[in-house]
Amino acid sequence: MILCDIGNTNATFLKDGKISRMSVDEFRRYEPKERVYFICVNDDLFAKLKSNPNFIDLEPYFEIDTIYQGLGIDRIAGCYGITDGVIVDAGSAITVDIMSNSIHLGGYILPGISSMLKAYEGISPRLKLPINSQIDIDALPQKTVDAVSYGILKPIVILLEKLAGNKKVYFTGGDGEFLSKFFKNAVCDKMLVFRSMQKLINNKKEILK
Amino acid sequence: MILCDIGNTNATFLKDGKISRMSVDEFRRYEPKERVYFICVNDDLFAKLKSNPNFIDLEPYFEIDTIYQGLGIDRIAGCYGITDGVIVDAGSAITVDIMSNSIHLGGYILPGISSMLKAYEGISPRLKLPINSQIDIDALPQKTVDAVSYGILKPIVILLEKLAGNKKVYFTGGDGEFLSKFFKNAVCDKMLVFRSMQKLINNKKEILK
Repeated sequence: MILCDIGNTNATFLKDGKISRMSVDEFRRYEPKERVYFICVNDDLFAKLKSNPNFIDLEPYFEIDTIYQGLGIDRIAGCYGITDGVIVDAGSAITVDIMSNSIHLGGYILPGISSMLKAYEGISPRLKLPINSQIDIDALPQKTVDAVSYGILKPIVILLEKLAGNKKVYFTGGDGEFLSKFFKNAVCDKMLVFRSMQKLINNKKEILK
Repeated sequence: MILCDIGNTNATFLKDGKISRMSVDEFRRYEPKERVYFICVNDDLFAKLKSNPNFIDLEPYFEIDTIYQGLGIDRIAGCYGITDGVIVDAGSAITVDIMSNSIHLGGYILPGISSMLKAYEGISPRLKLPINSQIDIDALPQKTVDAVSYGILKPIVILLEKLAGNKKVYFTGGDGEFLSKFFKNAVCDKMLVFRSMQKLINNKKEILK
């Protein structure tokens, strides 16, 4: 069985316990010979996904308790396995969702780190700068490269800390590990969404055989 | 006397107590017949500014007490008139600087609101959304349009509140008034930079005659 989590930039696969990745462009040419259970937030790919019966969309089977209108399936899947905690999926976008007693309390969306760097670059050539991954975000920046890195990281961290309180913060997605380093009570779990997909398939065995 | 604050997107003028604005493209064709005292962060315009002797650059005359390397002249000018406070210049970028006893303690840079909206749009067509200016940032978002507006505004507000403590927060720039509404201890001052430029000219009367 292959699991696949399709985002705006990449499709991430789990097969035999190993994670692999394909760009969305590569994915357009991918024709699996075996079943691929997927979730997908990329509207451009649904025509392709419908054309091959080996692709099985898990979206209709996921259910979480929320009043949020139009919660993306990636976020639903991230929350599905968590009873209490803050789920941070740091990819092209950074989504943050809060679960309490298996109820989704709401969430918000930030641009991902590479998207933020591009935004600075678009404002002025003076702000075309790399992220300083060693930055001390407890000190006020004293040069522009730090002023940008701090501007990206500090607001993310401070808001997450405030909202999380004593809850665990679960990081997943391409930048999840990097971001998790700025937190004490963090769990970094690249398998979070796949674990939820597997749990769903186990729960709905009679339908998803 | 004309004062002019040249940014990455617009040039803002003060003449006879009235503020007016010109896009950077319009500014390229602007040939003043009288003296224009200016500050400029847009490197592309310095050749033009040097070609007309009516343009007088105030940058060499501004001095503030800081260890920040390469602080932009717009930020220096914003801080120049403030003894104690947080200075937020919300334009193409949002710069935040902290002054304490006339010493600049450091600062950081965020993408401006329109730049953030563009960043979301670049991630996914699903995130091409306007800002909800009426959003209640004290409640967790329950729909995507709010998740984006919250993602833009809440991190800005929460970090500023934490850093400001009991200091006043001075907002200037095109989005300054909008942002100031989210704060209790806020002063909105479109004239902040011009007031500094005027103060400098008064202080350096013998040079800048």
